[in-house]
Amino acid sequence: MPKLFVTRREVFSASHRLYNPDLSDEENDRIYDKCNNPHGHGHNYTLEVTVRGDVNEQTGYVIDLKELKRIMREHVIKMVDHKYLNYDVDFMKGIIPTAENIAAAIWNQLYDKIPGGELYSVKIYETENNYAEFRGE
Amino acid sequence: MPKLFVTRREVFSASHRLYNPDLSDEENDRIYDKCNNPHGHGHNYTLEVTVRGDVNEQTGYVIDLKELKRIMREHVIKMVDHKYLNYDVDFMKGIIPTAENIAAAIWNQLYDKIPGGELYSVKIYETENNYAEFRGE
Amino acid sequence: MPKLFVTRREVFSASHRLYNPDLSDEENDRIYDKCNNPHGHGHNYTLEVTVRGDVNEQTGYVIDLKELKRIMREHVIKMVDHKYLNYDVDFMKGIIPTAENIAAAIWNQLYDKIPGGELYSVKIYETENNYAEFRGE
Amino acid sequence: MPKLFVTRREVFSASHRLYNPDLSDEENDRIYDKCNNPHGHGHNYTLEVTVRGDVNEQTGYVIDLKELKRIMREHVIKMVDHKYLNYDVDFMKGIIPTAENIAAAIWNQLYDKIPGGELYSVKIYETENNYAEFRGE
Amino acid sequence: MPKLFVTRREVFSASHRLYNPDLSDEENDRIYDKCNNPHGHGHNYTLEVTVRGDVNEQTGYVIDLKELKRIMREHVIKMVDHKYLNYDVDFMKGIIPTAENIAAAIWNQLYDKIPGGELYSVKIYETENNYAEFRGE
Amino acid sequence: MPKLFVTRREVFSASHRLYNPDLSDEENDRIYDKCNNPHGHGHNYTLEVTVRGDVNEQTGYVIDLKELKRIMREHVIKMVDHKYLNYDVDFMKGIIPTAENIAAAIWNQLYDKIPGGELYSVKIYETENNYAEFRGE
Repeated sequence: MPKLFVTRREVFSASHRLYNPDLSDEENDRIYDKCNNPHGHGHNYTLEVTVRGDVNEQTGYVIDLKELKRIMREHVIKMVDHKYLNYDVDFMKGIIPTAENIAAAIWNQLYDKIPGGELYSVKIYETENNYAEFRGE
Repeated sequence: MPKLFVTRREVFSASHRLYNPDLSDEENDRIYDKCNNPHGHGHNYTLEVTVRGDVNEQTGYVIDLKELKRIMREHVIKMVDHKYLNYDVDFMKGIIPTAENIAAAIWNQLYDKIPGGELYSVKIYETENNYAEFRGE
Repeated sequence: MPKLFVTRREVFSASHRLYNPDLSDEENDRIYDKCNNPHGHGHNYTLEVTVRGDVNEQTGYVIDLKELKRIMREHVIKMVDHKYLNYDVDFMKGIIPTAENIAAAIWNQLYDKIPGGELYSVKIYETENNYAEFRGE
Repeated sequence: MPKLFVTRREVFSASHRLYNPDLSDEENDRIYDKCNNPHGHGHNYTLEVTVRGDVNEQTGYVIDLKELKRIMREHVIKMVDHKYLNYDVDFMKGIIPTAENIAAAIWNQLYDKIPGGELYSVKIYETENNYAEFRGE
Repeated sequence: MPKLFVTRREVFSASHRLYNPDLSDEENDRIYDKCNNPHGHGHNYTLEVTVRGDVNEQTGYVIDLKELKRIMREHVIKMVDHKYLNYDVDFMKGIIPTAENIAAAIWNQLYDKIPGGELYSVKIYETENNYAEFRGE
Repeated sequence: MPKLFVTRREVFSASHRLYNPDLSDEENDRIYDKCNNPHGHGHNYTLEVTVRGDVNEQTGYVIDLKELKRIMREHVIKMVDHKYLNYDVDFMKGIIPTAENIAAAIWNQLYDKIPGGELYSVKIYETENNYAEFRGE
């Protein structure tokens, strides 16, 4: 059977602050600039999850995208949507919430929960101009 | 000369919490649900400002859109971008930051600062699915 | 209180055939061309519903957009999503499913079910290049 | 019969230079800045044309959008696509090609050629952030 | 000469029903749920075809994108646009029209018809949230 | 540390003419057709630059996207925005400005200027339907 890539997009709205508690305030300001606003700021994050696998001959699916949607909502979206990423999200605890680190943290939430295929890519769009992608390397 | 409408789009990233201090916590929860998360959450807000006016015969402009961009950045964007709307923005003080109220507050910031035309509309997209528009009525 | 416009977007996937049973097959072919394919064809329809009203001083809302979403899903989306508009939708019975007629039929479904505001506009995007809007005129 | 608005979107790629021959080079530089580059520059212009009219009971159309597309291509797109607006387009001769003036010139090309409805609006998007609209006022 | 990837996007409107005739109605309902509506439903499918090849020194092209557009329209779009994929399309006969299977079937239509480059990827967007990609593996 | 891909999008407006001076006018017309208009034509080009690298443990960044934005603006955008690519851009001199060649030329401008990561991909969208990508192969 041929191998295909299937992708599901979800959107969530969250706030964050870029701040490393191991650095001085001056260093945090220099590195993160306006992203270091003490009260935080926010984004409509777009999450794209890609799964790679064989097409099941009986169903014509790599993975039912309704099932991938359910998995993404249960293990990611319900935990991050309408939340402050620095305080409210267990799987982001102790992690500076850059787009890079959010993508890697979501990979860790999902990689062992995909039936019938392997997780191939997690993309996080922070704005229409900036995104990060993790492929498990 | 003909009358035209010209529109400029800008994007800003901010966080907010929907909460009315005059109401009980139970009422706030019932009305605002997940938008009432105590640490707030955020959006990439899209702002569209429309000006209506005569085309200047010499320039071919209602208003130079580079000038409209400058006005929007000086009087709105630099105050709200990478901010928490409930705490960090003077012109939002005491205002519940719903999309409706943000649109009306931005109208108040801009309506007397547009040379060569009248402010016609302020639109705020909170997500790709929700927006509010104020036309000064 | 100021009057504002709030808009909610929903997407549904449906199929349709443009065909007027009162006309001959030749006339249907001439008028509708490839839209008259006997097995039908389909679209991802985008529906935008705009409500106009006063901002409620206590909530900051014209209408809670979560409530507008619920109304749109109950009275429109669950009836048309993943359906064949010519056969499967009670409120489209006997109506040629052009974008114009779909917009007017959805208006009829919604206009008396909006609390706290008046229905102002129903827009139906059939493709990224074509849409129809009804404002109750 | 109800009155509806139908809109067709087309895209064309053209170049232009903002320059008023009645003004000095210094004035042109001051007014148009980088838009006054002597060799010109270009855009993918998006054109949206809206027609308002009664729905025809027999067809369900205000105007067949395939026909509106044909009219837009014959009277506008084939004249401006892959052209330099200052030199190559008869209906733009002597007109400074600002978004405002392009919208008004396209209105003049189209307003008497729409069967079964009246031209309601011509919108020209110059970029994803800037657009002008003419409604024949 | 450097190797580049060039991509052409086309859109088509079609309907389909997910149904495997080798399975019982109960199994079809369980697997395909609302996608198994007997009258079908539809989408605006977006097709992206990517070709990889050397840049031709004389033309600056991997493949003239106008030629890739012609090939895609002749061998795919004219067969699927405004059609019911289960009944009207020869190259989909006997294939359950999931996004995965449509992508693979379009690959088979195109892979031996690309002059001056090799077919690299076929992507099918079923909605703005779901897509499948085939790279010939 | 994990390896991630980060991408920054910028837009510029430019004009160009596809023309090879080593070929006859007839050959240029045959190869480039309407892209060979003597006065040129233009596009809003979208540029996406992807950098691959280790996430820095202290900052959470592969590369600060504000810094990538600065590099792209200094070495690419300020040279091509509001310009005629055939005449006004030093790094495009003698290069036929197809999307393929623009992508490769921008790669050459950027590949040795990326701190903390390696340039992975340069994408140029000429329109919403056509783009070219160079990965340094």
